[in-house]
Amino acid sequence: MTDTSTAIDVPAVLAAMTLEQKAALLDGSDFWHTQGDEQHGIPAIMLTDGPHGLRKQAEGADHLGLNASVPATCFPPASGLASSWDPKLMRRIGEALGDECRAADVAVLLGPGVNMKRSPLCGRNFEYFSEDPLLAGSLATGLVEGVQSKHVGTSLKHFAANNQETDRMTVDAQVDERTLREIYLPAFEKVVTEAQPWTVMCSYNKVNGVYASENRWLLTEVLRDDWGYDGLVVSDWGAVNERDKAVAAGLDLEMPSSAGIGQRRILDAVAAGTLSEASVDAAVANVLGLVAKSQAREPLASFDVDAHHELAHEAALQSAVLLKNEGGILPLETRGGPVAVIGEFARTPRFQGAGSSQVNPTRVDSALDALEIALLGKRELLFAPGFEIEADAASDELVAEAVEAARGAEIALVFLGLPPSYESEGYDREHMELPAQQVALLEAVAAVNENVVVVLSNGSAVAVSGWQGHAKAILEGWLLGQAGGSATAALLLGDANPSGKLAETIPVRFEDNPALGNFPGENGVVRYGEGLLIGYRWYDAHALPVSFPFGHGLSYTSFDYSDLSVEVLENGASPRVRVSLAVTNTGRLAGAEVVQIYVTDAEASVYRPEQELRGFARVRLEPGQSQTVAVELDARAFAFWSTIAHAWVVEGGSFGIRVGASSRDIRLTGEITLAGADVAPPLTVDSTAEQFLAHPQGGSWLRERLAGSEMGAMLFDETHGRMMRAIPLVRLSRFPGAPFDEAALAEAAAQASAKA
Amino acid sequence: MTDTSTAIDVPAVLAAMTLEQKAALLDGSDFWHTQGDEQHGIPAIMLTDGPHGLRKQAEGADHLGLNASVPATCFPPASGLASSWDPKLMRRIGEALGDECRAADVAVLLGPGVNMKRSPLCGRNFEYFSEDPLLAGSLATGLVEGVQSKHVGTSLKHFAANNQETDRMTVDAQVDERTLREIYLPAFEKVVTEAQPWTVMCSYNKVNGVYASENRWLLTEVLRDDWGYDGLVVSDWGAVNERDKAVAAGLDLEMPSSAGIGQRRILDAVAAGTLSEASVDAAVANVLGLVAKSQAREPLASFDVDAHHELAHEAALQSAVLLKNEGGILPLETRGGPVAVIGEFARTPRFQGAGSSQVNPTRVDSALDALEIALLGKRELLFAPGFEIEADAASDELVAEAVEAARGAEIALVFLGLPPSYESEGYDREHMELPAQQVALLEAVAAVNENVVVVLSNGSAVAVSGWQGHAKAILEGWLLGQAGGSATAALLLGDANPSGKLAETIPVRFEDNPALGNFPGENGVVRYGEGLLIGYRWYDAHALPVSFPFGHGLSYTSFDYSDLSVEVLENGASPRVRVSLAVTNTGRLAGAEVVQIYVTDAEASVYRPEQELRGFARVRLEPGQSQTVAVELDARAFAFWSTIAHAWVVEGGSFGIRVGASSRDIRLTGEITLAGADVAPPLTVDSTAEQFLAHPQGGSWLRERLAGSEMGAMLFDETHGRMMRAIPLVRLSRFPGAPFDEAALAEAAAQASAKA
Repeated sequence: MTDTSTAIDVPAVLAAMTLEQKAALLDGSDFWHTQGDEQHGIPAIMLTDGPHGLRKQAEGADHLGLNASVPATCFPPASGLASSWDPKLMRRIGEALGDECRAADVAVLLGPGVNMKRSPLCGRNFEYFSEDPLLAGSLATGLVEGVQSKHVGTSLKHFAANNQETDRMTVDAQVDERTLREIYLPAFEKVVTEAQPWTVMCSYNKVNGVYASENRWLLTEVLRDDWGYDGLVVSDWGAVNERDKAVAAGLDLEMPSSAGIGQRRILDAVAAGTLSEASVDAAVANVLGLVAKSQAREPLASFDVDAHHELAHEAALQSAVLLKNEGGILPLETRGGPVAVIGEFARTPRFQGAGSSQVNPTRVDSALDALEIALLGKRELLFAPGFEIEADAASDELVAEAVEAARGAEIALVFLGLPPSYESEGYDREHMELPAQQVALLEAVAAVNENVVVVLSNGSAVAVSGWQGHAKAILEGWLLGQAGGSATAALLLGDANPSGKLAETIPVRFEDNPALGNFPGENGVVRYGEGLLIGYRWYDAHALPVSFPFGHGLSYTSFDYSDLSVEVLENGASPRVRVSLAVTNTGRLAGAEVVQIYVTDAEASVYRPEQELRGFARVRLEPGQSQTVAVELDARAFAFWSTIAHAWVVEGGSFGIRVGASSRDIRLTGEITLAGADVAPPLTVDSTAEQFLAHPQGGSWLRERLAGSEMGAMLFDETHGRMMRAIPLVRLSRFPGAPFDEAALAEAAAQASAKA
Repeated sequence: MTDTSTAIDVPAVLAAMTLEQKAALLDGSDFWHTQGDEQHGIPAIMLTDGPHGLRKQAEGADHLGLNASVPATCFPPASGLASSWDPKLMRRIGEALGDECRAADVAVLLGPGVNMKRSPLCGRNFEYFSEDPLLAGSLATGLVEGVQSKHVGTSLKHFAANNQETDRMTVDAQVDERTLREIYLPAFEKVVTEAQPWTVMCSYNKVNGVYASENRWLLTEVLRDDWGYDGLVVSDWGAVNERDKAVAAGLDLEMPSSAGIGQRRILDAVAAGTLSEASVDAAVANVLGLVAKSQAREPLASFDVDAHHELAHEAALQSAVLLKNEGGILPLETRGGPVAVIGEFARTPRFQGAGSSQVNPTRVDSALDALEIALLGKRELLFAPGFEIEADAASDELVAEAVEAARGAEIALVFLGLPPSYESEGYDREHMELPAQQVALLEAVAAVNENVVVVLSNGSAVAVSGWQGHAKAILEGWLLGQAGGSATAALLLGDANPSGKLAETIPVRFEDNPALGNFPGENGVVRYGEGLLIGYRWYDAHALPVSFPFGHGLSYTSFDYSDLSVEVLENGASPRVRVSLAVTNTGRLAGAEVVQIYVTDAEASVYRPEQELRGFARVRLEPGQSQTVAVELDARAFAFWSTIAHAWVVEGGSFGIRVGASSRDIRLTGEITLAGADVAPPLTVDSTAEQFLAHPQGGSWLRERLAGSEMGAMLFDETHGRMMRAIPLVRLSRFPGAPFDEAALAEAAAQASAKA
């Protein structure tokens, strides 16, 4: 491959362009292309929806961009892929996506999306990975690396705090600094710092009062200054509010074309002196840089449709999660009595969600077809659709037919799920239940057949507590992409061993969820009141039972964890810790396990979640095989974001290391003591007596002053002393009879802090 | 009584004073007195701690004000009184307090405190009434009316959002506007508008970034402009940060004396032009007004100690809550086998909390004494202290003695509670459990005696779930004041019939509580992330089981609810509704019931709590007696605070009326439809297609524009239409091929809104 990223001499082009030409370059030329500039040899490049497949507008389709697109492989959406906990798989999918982009002459694929699943109701959760930022960031990093290895760009989105569809274009997400840094930003940070995505897409919403598209703190201070990003920032389609402010904030490219409106705003603002030409130049340089990078892409005549379908199948195998499997009812034996396959989803798979990510698949496997082929001549298969997917009410006839099939069968595989209208980009769900008619069908089937297996198709979590007693096994398929049907069959039949682990908690009830009352907000504002406590962090803090915990997933084999070793490689303000253990496949089948490492910090100067995922490793083992798994944890695994220092801080003390097969199936625990840093704020006049007394210099100064005084007697009084010692000394200095004044106090504080 | 409120000619005095004299008047003269001004005939007046009794510094005691005070009646603290749900009782207590102030030459009693119980851990919860603002405001209104009927002032405190002791002097309470208006301010509002307390005390903390003492929005815009307050605002003792800013914000009087520091700041600021003399004059006028009002107070040689003790006894009878009473084990029969009285609290009652509210009682009743007298010659009484109140560990000897007593008794009355060190002004609790040694004692007693009654003494809620299985009955005594011991005995013996109802929820576990992770904040900030959902509003929203719900309380008799009638007296934007029903005493004893009226608003344009207390009535009935209870609900019972209109709004629609004996024991329900007001915001360019289409004019304009266009096809597309219709039209106007531009859209929006 030729390195053509120098084919465009950015400084020279910048110097040669007029301001008008520059401003033009900051706008799209249509729905999907940037502006070209023939005079300066700048080609237009194409950006196209993703992320789990290419959605390239077909020629002649409407301009608004949501209709027919060219066929492409539909890999499982993020909600499925996330269950793989497998960045290597993500990388391979990324490579395949890169090839499809090459074949379609697409320069940038618009994804992945790494927003956190704050509420199970978010309509676009199927496009997002997890409720945990480390997991989401790790997986997205793999995808970005894969795509970009083909000299095709990605667009990390939606930056940031876009965690709902309701009022998504205007809502003001009010999130405190620490919550942003610890929950909503780290997935972006990880991808940016580890994979440098060519573009980052700003979200529609406001963050703490300022549109993301105009949020200089977000687009420049955090993204570029803190994280060192040097790529391009593009607007989500239509996210620009005031184009001149957006340029000043660090938004380089407006998409789609604003038909000159944006350009005019930029020129007017520069003329008025409210926007610097340097800001315009910086944005243009980023556009030129993107175009330059894209020149390295080598065209591909076509991609290997079969190979990509096979990869989609492999991805689906890893994306499904076996939630329960009572009495080892699964895998299905290949020989035996009749098998009832019930539910329209078996025949008409739901494998992706609606909106800008909707792919026109190259082909679609159905589980019914796959099961029919696999069982042909071995077991009788009785199919009954049971319901119409989008019907409002149950059909007595369809239910009766399904019950009949179930009655005559040894086992009933019941395919349930969310109708497409339940979840989509653009609006949020109203509840997290399956359609009542599907639950009624399940009950009717379970009444005549005790061997019921439920297979779920849903882009975001559904409550299972109301009906899971009717199912001996549940295979949570999320949305599995175009090969999901055949993958589901393979998992049910044991041709593949389930290895997916939940990337989001399945709560018992909607009422248990963290954002209740705070989602989706009202009157244009949404308060992230639960702070750090989303997902398992919330369920752990409230000690709530869950239906299935974060990280849970069963296998047809079993794994043993042993020989934990936790070694502090480097101590001090920026520690490194090595966690290693042995994992053994103790069952009779090959299988993969995801070892999860959670860190706890029981004593801290700030509130800390009960435990947080800080590392994981996927390991595939033959029966009887044992392997040592080692994960290195860096400072961030122990740090919190200090709102005093506005920085990551590791506070010295004891930390717990929990190694588990899920967040609630901890197998091994260890403990380490880290030196960390002293996080106590310096003494000031607003410090309390308690704070002074805890400080060597400050304490002796205060004790001297108080000796023999009335105030001293009060401060050490048995009944009221503790109350008095919690008062800032400056306030006490003004009380009648105080043995020190504000000036003396200020001096003492300054001296103590200088020495400390 | 002479009306001497005109004895000070405020305008004349103001005109005659120098700026220095005025500034001096805005500071205290010592810990408890205002400045006098002999030249202008302004006497110094005394303010003294309360609120459930007078805490007047004894002569010669230290100046810091927390030591020996003159004897006064200690009524039950607010956490006890609140369970009475009886504003009339509060008024009588207020009258008694007023008389004690008159006898002690005190001008202003520093109370009541109406802060909400946001977390059960707040160390000062014993001084506050409830988790519900209506209940707190109603009770405090009675108290203020009573005190002030004696021409003695009150101080409504701590204004506002002071809901914790941790960092109380400096913490920034971050509370959104609607939550302030609906939860944290209404109790203040009710007292201010209905009883005009002579003074309002600003709290120590910051509210949304600004010290309460410097918060003009709070002290002037809300308090005076919105609520019409015309009294004086005084600082909590030491709450002034920068005196000049405080004056400008509306803080009139600084207490205690700042020894001239405050005066100097004021004079400097006026000289520098950063503080207007008009602001100073306004503050001085309020000080003069307070002094003038206090001149109407007629001195009293002494108060009737016995009568006040009797009133404290009556208050205690109404303050205790009978939580459970299995098999009617209570009341205790006057004849029978031996009675074991166990627990040091029976002999050494805990009847108030520590801090500025701690009263030096005129006498103290113990339950043990009262029970001994009552049972003398009827039943044998065996006492064993069981534990030392502040001991860290159980004493085997004391436990053995208690078990011995219990073994030989027919019934065991076990007095448990929180040691004084567990809860105090100045710091928060660390958990909500009883001391482990007390629970261990209870278990040991229950192991030998199945008839266990637990009597609790605690200022804030304790978890009962860990041990309540060992008790057939629980009498929650909170803190019952100096006559609590005799009142407890009377309730146990059935000489009085329990009628208290919980003013706060008793959750099953601490982990269930709303402020988890958000209390008490960190690094000087506390986020009120749960918003409106404190207390029962939270437990209802999350459908959490509770140990005992808000409003719960048993009686020795039973009540029947019937004949609900709900009548809309006035409809429109400011409705009035009359709720009436019949309550019948269906048992064999006289007793009192508190009928509670909750309003529900299932469909609203904003999030609304499941149900909210909007009215209540206490009714005392003889056996067999029936009475009609009528409560009128005004607009506020149905309104929410609109953050668009910045006003209370009743949104038209259906409302539910629930009448119950507790928040979870709803006996009767009704429904009404109110016209209310149209709360839809006017159309703007940022309105979505959905919002335009819902509007008559806007809808027809948009439909015309879209007819036959590509964008029209997209907006009404079956798969993606709903997503497209949620996009603000101004954004769509910039999309390629849009059939309208921003100017046309703006005109259409303006026209539509003008006509609406």
